[in-house]
Amino acid sequence: MAAVELHQRLEEYEGLLEISVELAGSLDIERVLELAMDHAEKLCHAETSSIWEVDPHREELFFRIVRGTVAEEIRHRRVAIGEGIVGRVAASGRGEIVDDASSDPGWGGDLSGAFRTRAVLTVPLKAQGRVVGVLQILNPLGKLTFTERDLERMRLFAAPLGQAIDNARLYTALKGQFVDTVTALSEAIEKRDPYTGGHVRRVVCYSLLLGHEMQLSSQELEKLRLASTLHDVGKIAVPDHVLRKPAPLDASEAAVMQRHPVDGAEIISSIRELHDILPGVRSHHERLDGKGYPDGLSDQDIPMSARIIAVADTFDAMTSSRPYREAMAPAVALGEIQRGAGTQFCPRVVNAFTCLMDRDGFTVADGERLQCSLFGDGEQG
Amino acid sequence: MAAVELHQRLEEYEGLLEISVELAGSLDIERVLELAMDHAEKLCHAETSSIWEVDPHREELFFRIVRGTVAEEIRHRRVAIGEGIVGRVAASGRGEIVDDASSDPGWGGDLSGAFRTRAVLTVPLKAQGRVVGVLQILNPLGKLTFTERDLERMRLFAAPLGQAIDNARLYTALKGQFVDTVTALSEAIEKRDPYTGGHVRRVVCYSLLLGHEMQLSSQELEKLRLASTLHDVGKIAVPDHVLRKPAPLDASEAAVMQRHPVDGAEIISSIRELHDILPGVRSHHERLDGKGYPDGLSDQDIPMSARIIAVADTFDAMTSSRPYREAMAPAVALGEIQRGAGTQFCPRVVNAFTCLMDRDGFTVADGERLQCSLFGDGEQG
Repeated sequence: MAAVELHQRLEEYEGLLEISVELAGSLDIERVLELAMDHAEKLCHAETSSIWEVDPHREELFFRIVRGTVAEEIRHRRVAIGEGIVGRVAASGRGEIVDDASSDPGWGGDLSGAFRTRAVLTVPLKAQGRVVGVLQILNPLGKLTFTERDLERMRLFAAPLGQAIDNARLYTALKGQFVDTVTALSEAIEKRDPYTGGHVRRVVCYSLLLGHEMQLSSQELEKLRLASTLHDVGKIAVPDHVLRKPAPLDASEAAVMQRHPVDGAEIISSIRELHDILPGVRSHHERLDGKGYPDGLSDQDIPMSARIIAVADTFDAMTSSRPYREAMAPAVALGEIQRGAGTQFCPRVVNAFTCLMDRDGFTVADGERLQCSLFGDGEQG
Repeated sequence: MAAVELHQRLEEYEGLLEISVELAGSLDIERVLELAMDHAEKLCHAETSSIWEVDPHREELFFRIVRGTVAEEIRHRRVAIGEGIVGRVAASGRGEIVDDASSDPGWGGDLSGAFRTRAVLTVPLKAQGRVVGVLQILNPLGKLTFTERDLERMRLFAAPLGQAIDNARLYTALKGQFVDTVTALSEAIEKRDPYTGGHVRRVVCYSLLLGHEMQLSSQELEKLRLASTLHDVGKIAVPDHVLRKPAPLDASEAAVMQRHPVDGAEIISSIRELHDILPGVRSHHERLDGKGYPDGLSDQDIPMSARIIAVADTFDAMTSSRPYREAMAPAVALGEIQRGAGTQFCPRVVNAFTCLMDRDGFTVADGERLQCSLFGDGEQG
């Protein structure tokens, strides 16, 4: 190899080492994929690129990410392993160049009139020897087709990328397992009260919508999600005759019921990693005027997460029916909560709530969509 | 640079690319560290190496891993950030070579008479720009000290290593949060019965000891841990007057209580990611002779996880006191369980149980130690 070429390679390898560290630097799948496409296109001067992920349950690949004007049209496309160029590379585990896509027997044709595929370079993405996806770059800029050097470059690039995708996938799956399990257990704990089925899920949705409207950081939203999921966990200690009473509670029963934020906080306090969400659980029945429980906190002493959960919780209670009263219409509940701004509720939260209601954006469906976009839940295959 | 040197570098970079992929290939911190030390020692021909981790809560570094005869003596050593060579590198964020450790003002002296430190190369391990640890290699083989090239090599190597350590740390922390939370909620669900405090934790310990003795794979042990943690989750639906009755149950009460495996399985079935542990939860009250509940399964139809939990659960029930009877001595409980081998219990599980009891290895403390070594829980700082 000539000295010039050696120097070039050395520079390229240095660049690849940096890229591999950068790819490993995130366990957020969306961020990994965006980075990957940027680098892939730059490394081989390609017009565009796409990444496909293997769905192991279905022996298929699905579009994980694609950019440009055709993106929306092909986002939901799936390809069987073994079929087409992408499926062929996933099956063989070997990268390949196709000089003219339209003359390849595996080519399915361009999906958009606006884009014409000429040459295609496709490499498998592997983790621990298994194919986990496929990376494809399309149309080299300024030349007719891709070279063997391009293929070699993409092979080197594909190795850390496959690992990074797999790690992000494992992390996201574990997070999903965690949240789903805690939600199911919280619902079960709360289901002992037959009049509040689905309460936990709804309060989580409403809390996140409020927090997002108030521009909380993603870290704060993550904590708010757990705090709202676990807000009523202390009800486990409320006896059946109080929890399940099909009528309003008398004073002594109410006193028993009102212990649930403290009992909930005690359960949470046994979990070292959840100390951050303790205040949200303990203080979700406090009032701004200091007349709430269990600590009679007021104003700024009530943590923001608790002030948000208070509005979400009250709204859901008012709009759910009880054996002894009908459910309130959302618009009526809005009025009640607005009247409580400054005394029972935090005006900032009530303001966010009003804005969301004004544009019809305060439903469980909205909350679920928000969770998807915030935490990537349910995005797998 | 001469062509020979260029070629050498190119090879070295190729090797580093491979190593960085290998390091990224595991989210298991122990595995990452073992790999890292192997490679570090080989890359610079060093006699030994150590990795220190930053404990962000205490502004300290602690020995994460070290090898050789001195290992045990220094395993629990901690160093303040800024102190000594390791602390200095963590504070400055810059790697350095010390030709003669004994003449360095930061050197604390060798901890073992058997090992004499000569030259030391120390580099910081970073993730997203933060120092997360320090890698140190000691005593170059066949030369007096380390070279600038060695330092450069270790700098390149430290970049993917820092990321790999950080990713493994994040993954382990999330797993710990998950398991701790599910355990705390399961204990809370089970605490409604005042006579069984700590039951969940003990059944998990006993189940894992049995599974480990029976040489289950680490994946199966992971599932067994979750199944045993959640085995009584269905008790959430048992009314207070049955669950909390301070006397043996009558027939109709027993029928209500016996619904808990089915209710538990129903709760689990709502969690997509936990389908694998469903059989363990549903069938932990089945008997080998088909006289158990809820499905009257027999022999091989009862999943192994359920057969294991059955022995763990029964042993804990027998050795715990109830208001209407005293706790049984462990040796007496052993006899009872041995008598049930082949009818109530699986002989393979009873055999593992007998072996463990014979060598005094069936205690909660043993179970907790096992969990530490299997899952790395509580190993952080």
